[in-house]
Amino acid sequence: MRCEVVAVGTELLLGQVVDTNSSWIGEHLAGLGIDSYYQTKVGDNLDRICAVLRAAVARNDFVVVCGGLGPTPDDITREALAAVMGVGLRRDLELVESISAKFWRRGRSMPANNLQQADVPDGAEVIPVFPGTAPGLVCPIGATVVYAVPGVPWEMQTMMTEWIAEDMRRRAGVSGVIQSRTLRTWGESEGGLAERLGGVIDRLDASGTVTLAFLASGMEGLKVRLTAKADTAAEAAAMLAAEEAAVRAAIDDHLVFGTDEETMETAVLGLCRRAGLTLATAESLTGGMIATRLSAVPGASDVFRGSLVTYAAETKRNLLGVPAGPVVSEAAVRAMAAGACEQLGADCSVAVTGVAGPASADGEEPGTVWMATSVDGEIVARRHHFPFDRERTRQFTTIGILNELRLRLLSRAAS
Amino acid sequence: MRCEVVAVGTELLLGQVVDTNSSWIGEHLAGLGIDSYYQTKVGDNLDRICAVLRAAVARNDFVVVCGGLGPTPDDITREALAAVMGVGLRRDLELVESISAKFWRRGRSMPANNLQQADVPDGAEVIPVFPGTAPGLVCPIGATVVYAVPGVPWEMQTMMTEWIAEDMRRRAGVSGVIQSRTLRTWGESEGGLAERLGGVIDRLDASGTVTLAFLASGMEGLKVRLTAKADTAAEAAAMLAAEEAAVRAAIDDHLVFGTDEETMETAVLGLCRRAGLTLATAESLTGGMIATRLSAVPGASDVFRGSLVTYAAETKRNLLGVPAGPVVSEAAVRAMAAGACEQLGADCSVAVTGVAGPASADGEEPGTVWMATSVDGEIVARRHHFPFDRERTRQFTTIGILNELRLRLLSRAAS
Repeated sequence: MRCEVVAVGTELLLGQVVDTNSSWIGEHLAGLGIDSYYQTKVGDNLDRICAVLRAAVARNDFVVVCGGLGPTPDDITREALAAVMGVGLRRDLELVESISAKFWRRGRSMPANNLQQADVPDGAEVIPVFPGTAPGLVCPIGATVVYAVPGVPWEMQTMMTEWIAEDMRRRAGVSGVIQSRTLRTWGESEGGLAERLGGVIDRLDASGTVTLAFLASGMEGLKVRLTAKADTAAEAAAMLAAEEAAVRAAIDDHLVFGTDEETMETAVLGLCRRAGLTLATAESLTGGMIATRLSAVPGASDVFRGSLVTYAAETKRNLLGVPAGPVVSEAAVRAMAAGACEQLGADCSVAVTGVAGPASADGEEPGTVWMATSVDGEIVARRHHFPFDRERTRQFTTIGILNELRLRLLSRAAS
Repeated sequence: MRCEVVAVGTELLLGQVVDTNSSWIGEHLAGLGIDSYYQTKVGDNLDRICAVLRAAVARNDFVVVCGGLGPTPDDITREALAAVMGVGLRRDLELVESISAKFWRRGRSMPANNLQQADVPDGAEVIPVFPGTAPGLVCPIGATVVYAVPGVPWEMQTMMTEWIAEDMRRRAGVSGVIQSRTLRTWGESEGGLAERLGGVIDRLDASGTVTLAFLASGMEGLKVRLTAKADTAAEAAAMLAAEEAAVRAAIDDHLVFGTDEETMETAVLGLCRRAGLTLATAESLTGGMIATRLSAVPGASDVFRGSLVTYAAETKRNLLGVPAGPVVSEAAVRAMAAGACEQLGADCSVAVTGVAGPASADGEEPGTVWMATSVDGEIVARRHHFPFDRERTRQFTTIGILNELRLRLLSRAAS
């Protein structure tokens, strides 16, 4: 089965808004086992929306049209659908009720403009999942089914996951299920992982039931995604569990820092929490980025104590006791790691000092970074050199030092 | 004149990579005064790429096809263009030379695969700007011109700005120039700005030579973009200067924190630098985000001293002298602002403490934030309440407090 995504909105063509909805839907369709051959963007123009819809209907089993369901005069997806269906629009009185009820519940009266959101092409149905104020539509056109969803990402995603996905599967007569599992890794290149996984990949290619893909995602890690097709959810889960174990065995389990949505920060905070340890950071070139990532995790405050961002050399000496001499050095980073634990009353710490660039500093080239971790009062320091620009050097330093702490906490837990 | 962007790559349809190239090109075309009615994504499949190219050629004066010019078997944009042109591919010997020279200069020998990048459809020309290892192509098809560019963003952008834009203008017979100016504002809603600018907007609508658009960009500010069309660059610049002055007069100049690419951080660092003042931050709910933004600016180190990220209540008291009592309070934020200056040896500071959510803390609801600025030892504190989620609360706190410092530094410079 094939599905095309049509994103409606002049702001998308002008580059004022990047169309992330189509990417999200494309990923979701792949997970359902539905092919996606084209995605199209079109502006708020009736003739052009109709032309794009007609082309999409002619070459697909399903179409998801996203955007243009709001209350303003620009929102003309309803009119376009009616024109392509060759029918008129009728005002759905039940929808008028439910839209105005949504406004009432928020203590506001409904603007008259919002009435147009209750207009439905004759022969179309309203999607029963209705999270925002713009209802979604199901429009049969010949043998193709067109789903119209709002452009607001969370409203679209709610309709897709809670209703459209199942409706597509039912209509497509798909009896099986598709599940996937992502392993997030750090510490090995894509080429290196592919080499270690050679045997697994060959076996999966031959069997054809589980697929494996790599996805380099910067600070989010290098991802290995497994996707399984099976008759039942239990079977798919069992296949994924077996292949996850095979991948972990082949690449060295310690490279995997998280699964699915689990970030490096979440992993480190979890290890600290389980060990009853608190954490602090001392940062120079990252300027607070490590602390920002840690504190972005809800509930971080039971582990994370804080950070000393000592950007100026003098503050490194005054606050952290960094000795005289160069501040991009092993002596400096060791003093920073110790000072962070002491000043912030933490059990462990990470510390970084280096040259983010573009200029050299302290006699060192851009990309030179000293990193240290402190666990149980024992400090381990290492020198790195990154061949990146300023921002990527800061990002790789952030995930790199958190990974070093993760590995030390893992071996501490094992001993 | 009309131009369609066609992005090629199965990874775009699967949502593994978000197509930001089309957005960038769309924005660039708008700046050139070229209309963009459709944008299409298609996978690495010859028949489907050909179908999309034929449709695009039929309805546009220009087409930019992006991606599929690399050295792997998946890269088939060259073949698709030859098929649509109805011609064969010839190997361009000059290109073979220049591609292998690029490898030599990097001290590597050219893999045999890369030879296919020297294949050019008969009748096509090579784009003379050639930043990477994938050459771009100009293919005349009927009355339409198709430009093929690599999917690597910086390679595509270099070809667009350094050659294709001018080639399109020449072919389109556009004799004039188009320039734009963006004013970045903070402190007033889009509706509020639109009201203050009512007179200017009406006048511009009537004249038709300069256009004005709003663009809400989160932490990057609410942007007001002016675009002028004129016969010469000097005329366009003069028109923009006059309208920029009119906008600034209408909305209160102090709302404008920067122009074009100038961020709030750059503005604040610049004001500090000119006044010979150093800067520090003390952060709780933002967890280092203010420091991260400040230190992301190259050369920040002459102004920015560092930050005390006091996430735990105890660290606020020990390091910053926050008194007993609630830590989301005026007394706490004042102590933080004073402590940041003292501990980090800075002339000015910003301090924030609050509840990012999702849970309440310290008896306060999520979204409650106390912010303070310290300039010349005088501290000004204010309470805010944001109706946002955790991440947006942190972001609005960051730009909000930097804006408060900016306004104080401006009035200090004026007095």
